[in-house]
Amino acid sequence: MFRSHTCGELRLQNVNSQVTLAGWVQTVRKFGSITFVDLRDRYGITQLLFGEELNAMLDENPLGREFVLQVTGIVSERSNKNKNIPTGDIEINVESFKILNKSAVPPFTIQDDTDGGDDLRMKYRFLDLRRNAVKKNLELRYAVNRATRDYLHQQGFMDIETPFLIKSTPEGARDFVVPSRMNPGQFYALPQSPQTFKQLLMVSGYDRYYQIVKCFRDEDLRADRQPEFTQIDCEMAFVEQEDILNMFEGLIKYIFKAVKNIDYTEAVERMTWEDAMWNYGNDKPDIRFDMKVANLKSAFNKAGSIVATGELINGAGFGVFDNAETVLAIAVPGASEYTRKQIDELTDWVKRPQVGMQGMVNIKCNADGTFKSSVDKFFSEDKLKAIAAFANAKPGDLILILAGPEERTRKAISDLRLELGERLGLRKKNEYRLLWVLDFPLFEYAEEDNRWVARHHPFTSPKPSHIEVMINNDPVIENAAEYLKHPYSNIKANAYDMVLNGNEIGGGSIRIFQRELQEKMFSALGMSKEEALHKFGFLLGAFEYGAPPHGGIAFGFDRLCAILGGSESIRDFIAFPKNNSGRDVMLDAPATIDDKQLQELQIQLDLEKKA
Amino acid sequence: MFRSHTCGELRLQNVNSQVTLAGWVQTVRKFGSITFVDLRDRYGITQLLFGEELNAMLDENPLGREFVLQVTGIVSERSNKNKNIPTGDIEINVESFKILNKSAVPPFTIQDDTDGGDDLRMKYRFLDLRRNAVKKNLELRYAVNRATRDYLHQQGFMDIETPFLIKSTPEGARDFVVPSRMNPGQFYALPQSPQTFKQLLMVSGYDRYYQIVKCFRDEDLRADRQPEFTQIDCEMAFVEQEDILNMFEGLIKYIFKAVKNIDYTEAVERMTWEDAMWNYGNDKPDIRFDMKVANLKSAFNKAGSIVATGELINGAGFGVFDNAETVLAIAVPGASEYTRKQIDELTDWVKRPQVGMQGMVNIKCNADGTFKSSVDKFFSEDKLKAIAAFANAKPGDLILILAGPEERTRKAISDLRLELGERLGLRKKNEYRLLWVLDFPLFEYAEEDNRWVARHHPFTSPKPSHIEVMINNDPVIENAAEYLKHPYSNIKANAYDMVLNGNEIGGGSIRIFQRELQEKMFSALGMSKEEALHKFGFLLGAFEYGAPPHGGIAFGFDRLCAILGGSESIRDFIAFPKNNSGRDVMLDAPATIDDKQLQELQIQLDLEKKA
Repeated sequence: MFRSHTCGELRLQNVNSQVTLAGWVQTVRKFGSITFVDLRDRYGITQLLFGEELNAMLDENPLGREFVLQVTGIVSERSNKNKNIPTGDIEINVESFKILNKSAVPPFTIQDDTDGGDDLRMKYRFLDLRRNAVKKNLELRYAVNRATRDYLHQQGFMDIETPFLIKSTPEGARDFVVPSRMNPGQFYALPQSPQTFKQLLMVSGYDRYYQIVKCFRDEDLRADRQPEFTQIDCEMAFVEQEDILNMFEGLIKYIFKAVKNIDYTEAVERMTWEDAMWNYGNDKPDIRFDMKVANLKSAFNKAGSIVATGELINGAGFGVFDNAETVLAIAVPGASEYTRKQIDELTDWVKRPQVGMQGMVNIKCNADGTFKSSVDKFFSEDKLKAIAAFANAKPGDLILILAGPEERTRKAISDLRLELGERLGLRKKNEYRLLWVLDFPLFEYAEEDNRWVARHHPFTSPKPSHIEVMINNDPVIENAAEYLKHPYSNIKANAYDMVLNGNEIGGGSIRIFQRELQEKMFSALGMSKEEALHKFGFLLGAFEYGAPPHGGIAFGFDRLCAILGGSESIRDFIAFPKNNSGRDVMLDAPATIDDKQLQELQIQLDLEKKA
Repeated sequence: MFRSHTCGELRLQNVNSQVTLAGWVQTVRKFGSITFVDLRDRYGITQLLFGEELNAMLDENPLGREFVLQVTGIVSERSNKNKNIPTGDIEINVESFKILNKSAVPPFTIQDDTDGGDDLRMKYRFLDLRRNAVKKNLELRYAVNRATRDYLHQQGFMDIETPFLIKSTPEGARDFVVPSRMNPGQFYALPQSPQTFKQLLMVSGYDRYYQIVKCFRDEDLRADRQPEFTQIDCEMAFVEQEDILNMFEGLIKYIFKAVKNIDYTEAVERMTWEDAMWNYGNDKPDIRFDMKVANLKSAFNKAGSIVATGELINGAGFGVFDNAETVLAIAVPGASEYTRKQIDELTDWVKRPQVGMQGMVNIKCNADGTFKSSVDKFFSEDKLKAIAAFANAKPGDLILILAGPEERTRKAISDLRLELGERLGLRKKNEYRLLWVLDFPLFEYAEEDNRWVARHHPFTSPKPSHIEVMINNDPVIENAAEYLKHPYSNIKANAYDMVLNGNEIGGGSIRIFQRELQEKMFSALGMSKEEALHKFGFLLGAFEYGAPPHGGIAFGFDRLCAILGGSESIRDFIAFPKNNSGRDVMLDAPATIDDKQLQELQIQLDLEKKA
């Protein structure tokens, strides 16, 4: 061993012992004939004191930042103690030292507030990883990993590894593929998730399966998406939705306790997808604060399960409302005294291209019970009062109203709600609110192909009471514009998402486990019998040999860690992430490969000529 | 929940409770108006009793093997108890039942001794996985996984995930590559191991890293090799070889205790690579039994560290020995009374093409102290006695001698030793003997390229005392035939293998951590400066910024599990293995992909025309 103790370990009780430490030089401070060095390792920082004699040797072998140093010396009590670090009471009176390795001057400082930009830190990721801020993230990630395994083990789950070289079944996202040298002309695919394998394991009788596993999607990368990402992947047999919800809110609560020491004792709230969309404009509402959306005109739910309330605003002569497909309002608590400037700024905010609104109407609900609105001339005080009541606004609140096409307006009011929640400090960093969103639609309509696609995935079971609707109706959509009138629009799935502070952290479903129903699902999605057999014959086959009822869930591990770490960016919680072009800039990968490799794989490049 | 208890849970103390079970129909036995069903799940088997009334319903809905069944009933004491299963004292008096899913007749029986052949079982792997024999293997695998994580966690190791989409650095085995759609013409590679990443993590200060991780090698598959396999991958900083040996024999002992309840308290034996080759003809000797190899002629170690003993046999006029490069003997304990037939059979065994010997000489060391040999006419009783003494043969032993070219003969005697150990019952199933093999050569000579290759990998450090030899000598081999005279032949590495019962279960090394030495290593392997920078520039760069001394090890997880499970085949311990052509016959993967996928990747097939 190069050390007797770590740099985070020594305390007053160690005073007078001889110790050997090894680590990195964080700082060097010379005071006349004495030199102080802060020596850093994974566990902490310890101050070293080089006295007169050794100082001369240091002059010959000067220490630089990030040098790897080994010292032997005596633990001594410090006169000027540093209360900010656990080792701050002591220092090492160095007797001998050895430079184990030198370091060039690092391209950025190894500190919490580094002077390195993103690109530089990614290129020198091995240095970035030395920073305490990044190290804490990876430690948190490991703690979440560990807690997950402990809980699932206690609950009787088995970690079973599923293969990485599988079959390409293009449905949903794009697969990464791997040419097979031994089977020329054929390709493996990397799994987008172990979905079908975990279902097969249920058929095989392993009734509680889990894995913390890498998955791959070759999609155009948006900010904070990675081509390879990690999932906590779970499946259970002989269960109903209720069992899964209980089991996995237990998991997240266990993680809260183990990792954040939070006792999340209350039951996890539940909300249907329709309610989430109606009340928050969003299927992953942040319920740390209220500020619900009021639908002033038409219900988003064209299927009609919620009564439209257009009479509040229609016919007042205000064309913007009259002509809009949707008019949505939120009541911002205590904001009735916002200045013109503040409101203009918010209006500009919703007019930005990312939000895309034409404008914003406001109603100030004054503390004295009166109202002041930008549309005073169209709406009487009584009307304004009625709108305020409908929007749950109290005296002192500011009502903000957006009008426009349904989907865009819904997203805009949701964004605005989150933005104001942020500005008003309602999205508290240290508050965690879990939510189950339930009863998702089974299908979505894909305009470009004029067909149904599975909202979750093709293995998701309809609600039992909706199975008949699926079986008894032809999926064909005669009139694309009226797809909402097709009975498939109303079919709900036995699917659920877990939402934490406005982020979807996991989702799953009860699966189809009968061959006939699965075949019907494939055909509803426009797959021919041959295609279904070619892609999923193994699963259909397995369903013939005694498949049990089953269901499961997968959590986005990277995102879960990021949220628990209080960050928006998953990249900060991945040791070696890729950039937005899918590149590892440290490795400089992907890269060209040798002609010999291409020949062995019996493929060649076929690059598009650039204009 | 579809059940109140599992099929392995109920005991006499549950008698009279109403329970609900769900599982698979293992057997159906009708006795007049009563039917017995064995219901199976992951946890066990419980006997169900269908009385007269329900029997009529069974007639309408007949149960078949592997049907998924849910029953509710009363736990009752059995009159004819089955002592072979933990639930054998009770049965369920069924009150109601529901067939949750039917099953076609499975293509083979779901039993320990199945009637299914390999191919059929692989195609229907989801059924094969139901068999108790396979389930026990996966449970053992999970137990090893769990024990590994527990131990390494206790020792302060952190699980840190490394990327799967990396850069191809063809050196050693062939990479699987993944075309990048976002970076046309460029490819990722799948990792053969996280080697460089774990070293970077050491540079980053994460001084105890581990992962249980999938690795990929596109090699021609021999029996029992998989294109994707799992490693326990570990690395430590600020350590010397001794620290690593202690840490990881601790791991394996911990696994023994946790998984097999074996207290492996004795120190793990250690042996140099030279001694292993000399005494066992093999670098992974099975030390559960002795039967060491005696080198009757030239030492295998041409470098000359062990004295040759040719005087025992040379010049006796027996041309086979005189002309052979190597003559090797083993003394088979208690086999002096083998019949002519038995010896002929052994001679045939060594003459098989897999072993490739021309013949075999024997000396019977009779119990009365006399000798009888197939080469009596060349060797006097005194000579035979001297040979017997040298071969450590006792009265009653049979000495077997093989002669021929060095490498083949060494392998043959090693194979023969293992075969006889097996036949004599010396390789006891339930005995586990660990061994560290140390001081491997740093380089091997690659005849085809007339250059040195790294025996372990190019990141392995030479023994400190051998570094000078490496630095001060030109790697060029003037005379290929005399490569053994090149000083590089004598350089030993700080590398170690862990051997369990004759299987290499893990291997590792202390790494190079200085840029200059790493560059020297790349150049010794015939890599140009440019090539080294292109492939490993990130690592060389990292070594400039304060790399600590470090080393590590990787265990073959599949093999470790197989050995602990008492099997030769790793395939039995992988949930979804591939066959010898790298195919998953259940999925039918790899497979062709859509033209659209090829176009998006900007590659095309370039299939060789078959003659």
